[in-house]
Amino acid sequence: MVMMISKVEIRSGAYYDSVILMQLQRELAALPDVIDAGVVMGTEANKNILSQNDMLSPEGEAAGPEDLLIVVQAPSEKVALDALRQVDELLTRRRQGADHEYRPKSIETAAEMAPDARWALISVPGRYAADVTRTVLNLEKNVFLYSDNVTLEDEIAVKQEAREKGLMVMGPDCGTAIVNGVGLGFANQVRRGPIGLVAASGTGLQAVSVRIHQLGSGITHALGTGGRDLSDAVEAITAFQGLDLLRRDPDTQVIVLISKPPSATVAEKLLQAARLSGKPVVVDFIGYASPSRRVENVFFATSFDETAEMAIKLASASSEVAPSKEVDSSAFASAQRYLRGLFSGGTLAYETLLILQAYIPGVYSNVPLKEELRLPDALVSQEHTIVDLGEDEFTVGRLHPMMDNDLRIRRLEQEASDPEVAVLLLDVVLGHGAHPDPASELAPAIQSAFETASKAGRHLEMVAVVVGTDEDPQGLDAQISQLEAAGAKVWTSNEAAARYVGRLIQTLSPESEIPTHTPVDLSVLKDPLSAINVGVESFAESLSAQDASVIHVDWRPPAGGNQELMSILERMKGL
Amino acid sequence: MVMMISKVEIRSGAYYDSVILMQLQRELAALPDVIDAGVVMGTEANKNILSQNDMLSPEGEAAGPEDLLIVVQAPSEKVALDALRQVDELLTRRRQGADHEYRPKSIETAAEMAPDARWALISVPGRYAADVTRTVLNLEKNVFLYSDNVTLEDEIAVKQEAREKGLMVMGPDCGTAIVNGVGLGFANQVRRGPIGLVAASGTGLQAVSVRIHQLGSGITHALGTGGRDLSDAVEAITAFQGLDLLRRDPDTQVIVLISKPPSATVAEKLLQAARLSGKPVVVDFIGYASPSRRVENVFFATSFDETAEMAIKLASASSEVAPSKEVDSSAFASAQRYLRGLFSGGTLAYETLLILQAYIPGVYSNVPLKEELRLPDALVSQEHTIVDLGEDEFTVGRLHPMMDNDLRIRRLEQEASDPEVAVLLLDVVLGHGAHPDPASELAPAIQSAFETASKAGRHLEMVAVVVGTDEDPQGLDAQISQLEAAGAKVWTSNEAAARYVGRLIQTLSPESEIPTHTPVDLSVLKDPLSAINVGVESFAESLSAQDASVIHVDWRPPAGGNQELMSILERMKGL
Repeated sequence: MVMMISKVEIRSGAYYDSVILMQLQRELAALPDVIDAGVVMGTEANKNILSQNDMLSPEGEAAGPEDLLIVVQAPSEKVALDALRQVDELLTRRRQGADHEYRPKSIETAAEMAPDARWALISVPGRYAADVTRTVLNLEKNVFLYSDNVTLEDEIAVKQEAREKGLMVMGPDCGTAIVNGVGLGFANQVRRGPIGLVAASGTGLQAVSVRIHQLGSGITHALGTGGRDLSDAVEAITAFQGLDLLRRDPDTQVIVLISKPPSATVAEKLLQAARLSGKPVVVDFIGYASPSRRVENVFFATSFDETAEMAIKLASASSEVAPSKEVDSSAFASAQRYLRGLFSGGTLAYETLLILQAYIPGVYSNVPLKEELRLPDALVSQEHTIVDLGEDEFTVGRLHPMMDNDLRIRRLEQEASDPEVAVLLLDVVLGHGAHPDPASELAPAIQSAFETASKAGRHLEMVAVVVGTDEDPQGLDAQISQLEAAGAKVWTSNEAAARYVGRLIQTLSPESEIPTHTPVDLSVLKDPLSAINVGVESFAESLSAQDASVIHVDWRPPAGGNQELMSILERMKGL
Repeated sequence: MVMMISKVEIRSGAYYDSVILMQLQRELAALPDVIDAGVVMGTEANKNILSQNDMLSPEGEAAGPEDLLIVVQAPSEKVALDALRQVDELLTRRRQGADHEYRPKSIETAAEMAPDARWALISVPGRYAADVTRTVLNLEKNVFLYSDNVTLEDEIAVKQEAREKGLMVMGPDCGTAIVNGVGLGFANQVRRGPIGLVAASGTGLQAVSVRIHQLGSGITHALGTGGRDLSDAVEAITAFQGLDLLRRDPDTQVIVLISKPPSATVAEKLLQAARLSGKPVVVDFIGYASPSRRVENVFFATSFDETAEMAIKLASASSEVAPSKEVDSSAFASAQRYLRGLFSGGTLAYETLLILQAYIPGVYSNVPLKEELRLPDALVSQEHTIVDLGEDEFTVGRLHPMMDNDLRIRRLEQEASDPEVAVLLLDVVLGHGAHPDPASELAPAIQSAFETASKAGRHLEMVAVVVGTDEDPQGLDAQISQLEAAGAKVWTSNEAAARYVGRLIQTLSPESEIPTHTPVDLSVLKDPLSAINVGVESFAESLSAQDASVIHVDWRPPAGGNQELMSILERMKGL
């Protein structure tokens, strides 16, 4: 067995970018007789990795997250110490090798050198990233923020600031984007074509854009948002900007939206924005429960491959995505805007709630999709409400509403008296065991509800879903005729009824639900890409290789990365 | 305005079934001059409903949940009191009208009268339902338990008892089923055909079976489970029995599984049972995030309509659902069973986790699908593990694994040394910004991992997903060739790779994950339906109307429903 000695060097407050550290580690490990080497910042995670590889001595344990920790493993102390002695020389050699052309030291100088640069790529260590982003936003540049380990508070602050200015911040932790044919960060070389992407998932964006290319189509732009963008805290600021840009981009025929499961509230709002984009939108919220396969112009996919396939199909037949027939809501009084659904079937109610998510936010229920939408009192509707009258609470000593219409008839009258109610939705479930002729009781109740509303100068829309077969004892056609004769719009598909109601109610809802802000100028996508690169140098090289124009900033952290000195400088700024 | 007087009568400890109460209410309300009437058990919910209709006086408030509460609204006290005085007569008339044939008073007698009855329909009030179910199970009958308001503890107890006996309890709160062409509870008249249903959702079952009929196909059997069956507590006891029955039923060509979102653990196990059923299975877990559109023989639908459409399509082309190519796992040593995935792409890791759910339970990760599967230490794998090495924790002062392979190469060696590891999975993401030639470093590492395993007498399967285009700077084909030359199985679709790995790992997993118990005899579905009905009388009438044989039990609660007396009787039994 070979003798093994570990020697450690800790350099406090020194800043080197990650490429330099990786190269130093490789060069140390490649020195004659050296067994292994580690060159990392002394974070807990990094020390654990060293420890995993038996390279963490008690000396090394002492390194803090701001310290550079260098470990050399060798068969003798001499070899290890010799290796450590070469660190300075290796670092100097790297630095000289890189200095083949003039590099501005400040972002401001870079901005003067490249007045056309609309973008900045930022990949400095996380703790510096928000400050660099603010500097760039002040120079009116859009930001591709590759850096991770940025706080949520900083993310929110810089995105809000950008939105005010009509600028976009993709990221933090944005791995990839393709703007006007040029890949930023990690991006595949993908054919130009009719599909535009917005993605809160880096490899999701890459996997889908690659598949689109493999299948023979291509993309306009692919915009990253960073993984936290679709959280409640960040409110999808960047995703909304991206959707809006692609909506306005005449070359984008189909929009693809990719994310890990977003917050329910954000998902709802994004789907509504997608609905209103007027273009076919393929949504792949990986691991998200789709309300349906399709809601109007919004299509739901469940994998990267399927997302690409659906987008291509829609791009080649976008005329097939005809807008749904217009609904007529002109007859309603101005205060009328709410839906009230009175269901006897629990899962019919549930499916309706799911589908309506794509049309209107927040439907209250006694079987709600999320707890905050639970009706405080199932007997009293509020705003949009769907009640399952077959729930246990209603059936103690009482027949199920499929057998006994009494409760629904009373509630129907109650809802019809509410001046804010516009649409009433009922299910009528036929079959053995159910009421022998439900329409004979519901139709008069519907008529009476119409009269109540009409006396008060209001129009009502009454929608009924009849679940039954032509062989059911009640007679499907006879039930439908009775309901239609009373003035109800009858559907035999719960899904189709929910969509109809969704379209109708949506026209009555104020569209201000979709956040509107200073739009990002479409020219940031359309102009030839020009950027300032701050951080990982190879990203600049990659832009050059794609014939984009780029200026790399020879960035150093303030005070050389010394945290104490930085905070003194920070305090002096305030004076 | 009409004067309005409410008069109330409270009858303590009296039992009447819900049909009688509904009819009494209607008859009272129909008496001359009576304005409205309410006849309910005095639960809080029922009193709230009365109150909503302005029918709850302080007197009525005093009624408890065991009391029958009768309210009459009339223009004068005299009319109201006259109406109340007729209650006894109306009730007596009902009772006599119903007694047109001999009815056994006890379930035991009914069982003697109908020795062929394999089923009992139970729709007594919830608090009596578990006891009645136990009585029926002791008589070796299967149960359709319509009653709701049954406790979870009782549900678990009776289902476990039934399972031991090879009997089935559909419910509680099971609204519907179709057994051998006969509808139980609420059920539509649906054509016989090749599709069998298992549903934890009553109206879901009805909506899908109706749509199947409307589209020209039909069903074999439709088995309800009750809405709580797929919870962690109940562990889908009935759903597993249903799946197993339909798997064994030669007439069922396609199985449909419907539920509101099940618990993640139960969903996983059910999907694995579905996978192993050998028949095409269409899953509509309404509001559940499908792992994919299709996993082998399991297909995911997102609405009732789509579920029906997919099932019909599969039934008419079930030969298309060819079993996937067999994977060969014969070369592994007996201790080898685990997967280790080392990803650089977070969302690729996530999609893989989603898809693997359908093959194997519980993959640990630092980006887990559920918190209990979070790796305690991201640096140490356990059982099946997928690590995202691009997570923030790994990238402080270190390049992303798409640029720097060091971390993955070290981890690969570590995993290859683990005698329980069978399959290693890597993603290799190409494109601008990424490592200029990742395969040049990964291929030797793969070879070295093979050698490590081989020296220890083990076989390894090395799977790589390459995400890249033919125009990427690394050259897609060259990367693939290097990896293949090193012995890796290479895929360009993440989804396809995940499925392959899933099949492979599944063959190495003990199949005992799927609960096996006394199977329910297939003849309970195949014999002409014969049943005992306990509770709502109209369900017996409905069975007769369908030419099924049924005996209705003239059931009364013990001690006439008097709770105090019941508990005394209960205590005496124990003596």
